[in-house]
Amino acid sequence: MTELKQDLTPADIGHAPLADVEAAPRAGKIMLVGIGPGSVDHMTQRARAAIAEADVVIGYVTYIKLVADLIEGKEIIRKSMTEELDRAVSALEAAEAGKKVALISSGDAGVYGMAGPTYEVLFQAGWTPDHPVKLEIVPGASAINSCAALVGAPLTHDFCSISLSDLLTPWPVIARRLDAAAHADFVVALYNPKSGRRTRQIVEAQRLFLRHRRADTPVAIVKSAYRRRERIEFTTLDRMSECEIGMLSTVLIGNSNTVLRHGLMVTPRGYANKYDMADGGATREGEKAGRSLSTGLIGWLEGLQADHAAGASFEALAAQHRLPLDYVRATLEEPLEAALPDTAEEGEG
Amino acid sequence: MTELKQDLTPADIGHAPLADVEAAPRAGKIMLVGIGPGSVDHMTQRARAAIAEADVVIGYVTYIKLVADLIEGKEIIRKSMTEELDRAVSALEAAEAGKKVALISSGDAGVYGMAGPTYEVLFQAGWTPDHPVKLEIVPGASAINSCAALVGAPLTHDFCSISLSDLLTPWPVIARRLDAAAHADFVVALYNPKSGRRTRQIVEAQRLFLRHRRADTPVAIVKSAYRRRERIEFTTLDRMSECEIGMLSTVLIGNSNTVLRHGLMVTPRGYANKYDMADGGATREGEKAGRSLSTGLIGWLEGLQADHAAGASFEALAAQHRLPLDYVRATLEEPLEAALPDTAEEGEG
Repeated sequence: MTELKQDLTPADIGHAPLADVEAAPRAGKIMLVGIGPGSVDHMTQRARAAIAEADVVIGYVTYIKLVADLIEGKEIIRKSMTEELDRAVSALEAAEAGKKVALISSGDAGVYGMAGPTYEVLFQAGWTPDHPVKLEIVPGASAINSCAALVGAPLTHDFCSISLSDLLTPWPVIARRLDAAAHADFVVALYNPKSGRRTRQIVEAQRLFLRHRRADTPVAIVKSAYRRRERIEFTTLDRMSECEIGMLSTVLIGNSNTVLRHGLMVTPRGYANKYDMADGGATREGEKAGRSLSTGLIGWLEGLQADHAAGASFEALAAQHRLPLDYVRATLEEPLEAALPDTAEEGEG
Repeated sequence: MTELKQDLTPADIGHAPLADVEAAPRAGKIMLVGIGPGSVDHMTQRARAAIAEADVVIGYVTYIKLVADLIEGKEIIRKSMTEELDRAVSALEAAEAGKKVALISSGDAGVYGMAGPTYEVLFQAGWTPDHPVKLEIVPGASAINSCAALVGAPLTHDFCSISLSDLLTPWPVIARRLDAAAHADFVVALYNPKSGRRTRQIVEAQRLFLRHRRADTPVAIVKSAYRRRERIEFTTLDRMSECEIGMLSTVLIGNSNTVLRHGLMVTPRGYANKYDMADGGATREGEKAGRSLSTGLIGWLEGLQADHAAGASFEALAAQHRLPLDYVRATLEEPLEAALPDTAEEGEG
């Protein structure tokens, strides 16, 4: 994850329309490099190669230091946290002059990072993929993956990533996302959870989550994953907002099945839905390994149809399954497809 | 992402309680290695080092082939797609015998991968972190990050990851998540979108999304990212379920602001909320660079209080902002904190 910092406004960018680069000896290139959590070990080969290949390296000073061994002899543009849109503009200018530019971000450039803003700046300047300056995004492990790897296996099932930064996003949009994620029982990662000014957003997030999730839901707060000042704290939902949380922290909130066991936060994959763990792992009645659950889509639809045929109203069924009425109605009105012939097996991932 | 395949039931595992390993010459180790999308370039240094360090390498045959240069002389246990819980058991047995074991997964082991099931198997066998056999999870870029890097910048804002596999998860749970994610305007990545048997889940997902999102919402379908048979297709929400989608595909559904422009799928970060892009990027009235929006939490609360003082009921305000009534009431009843002194600047990430 990279914290997008910007003191410049788009009006200040003042980038002239793209010059005709056909006259340049060679077209430059922009590489948006996600360096992962900020440890040399956890950079990909491509990330290192892209930086080594670059003529110009642009980035926040902390990340520049991390790749010190790769950048000797290169032009380095160190940007502060408040100048990220400016980084995209600098990258474009250097690339138009024929240079290979590595624009480095922590985590993955696509997650609250440089990728979106860079494309926005490029499009605004009239760039298209046919332009001689090419763009490559080098993926990396985002904070959610790095932090999760350090605390156990919190992300095993469906998850959401929500930023608590309201610098570009209205609060009601964020609040609706928090409430929806909590309601639908996602594991949730909170990015930008708190800052010097933004101290109440985490309190509101806790309030919204407590509408749906138990007070003792496991929460992990990870700061500076894989870096020197790494710090991990486990807590519960009802005490989350009182914990030490800052700009370098990611907060992971478990779903309703997540447990803290032996100091590790683990979200089950759902084997208990199919196998009776108390009975030596025997397959439950009506279930079969390698097949959809009896309450998977087809079985659920069959049950729904049977209940409806037996007299249950659409409204009652919608309420029972906590699904929208119009969805229940529409899906019941569509005939079940004929069962497919057996094909290659599928696993329970 | 790794597809968790399992033909074995937990009952078949039949793992005896952990042996006393104090007698072993050295304690073994289990390393769950996320190798990223499946290209050597996109593996991290730690991932390669962990495999090089291992005595035993366990994994699905496709991933074993990928690291062929690292595994000469090692004991290789190739597992088919249907035997992943079995992989965790084999890893534990080898580690108890003093070996260093690398259990490899595509993407990130924590995302629908081996991490959760491995911990479940370990705990079931009586393992704790104090046991001599240690466990390390090596994070990697998940399919969502790799696929996103290839299609533009779809993930710029809040996103959800949802698996359409109902082999371990009841359909109503999945459906509620799809509906919640669509309602709250998340970018969504669908894992396990379709298989030989599971062909209707993607149709249902489309149905649920169309309740909230425009028919022309950009969708990208990426198969085998960074591999030889990589295939990318752009489509729209209303045609998503008709496209070629298989076990190796990840589907990315944009939010209400995502656009397909020049063949690239880009989700804006939200600069338009603060800056008038049509007016040369001038800061909108009432907004300030580096500060929360006027509709950020504090500004929004102030507006809410003013509206309530002017006579708007809790119910009317809840309806206006599409937030739960009890939340609006509770948050209005909590006094606004005193404004904090200016501290370090924050960026607009």
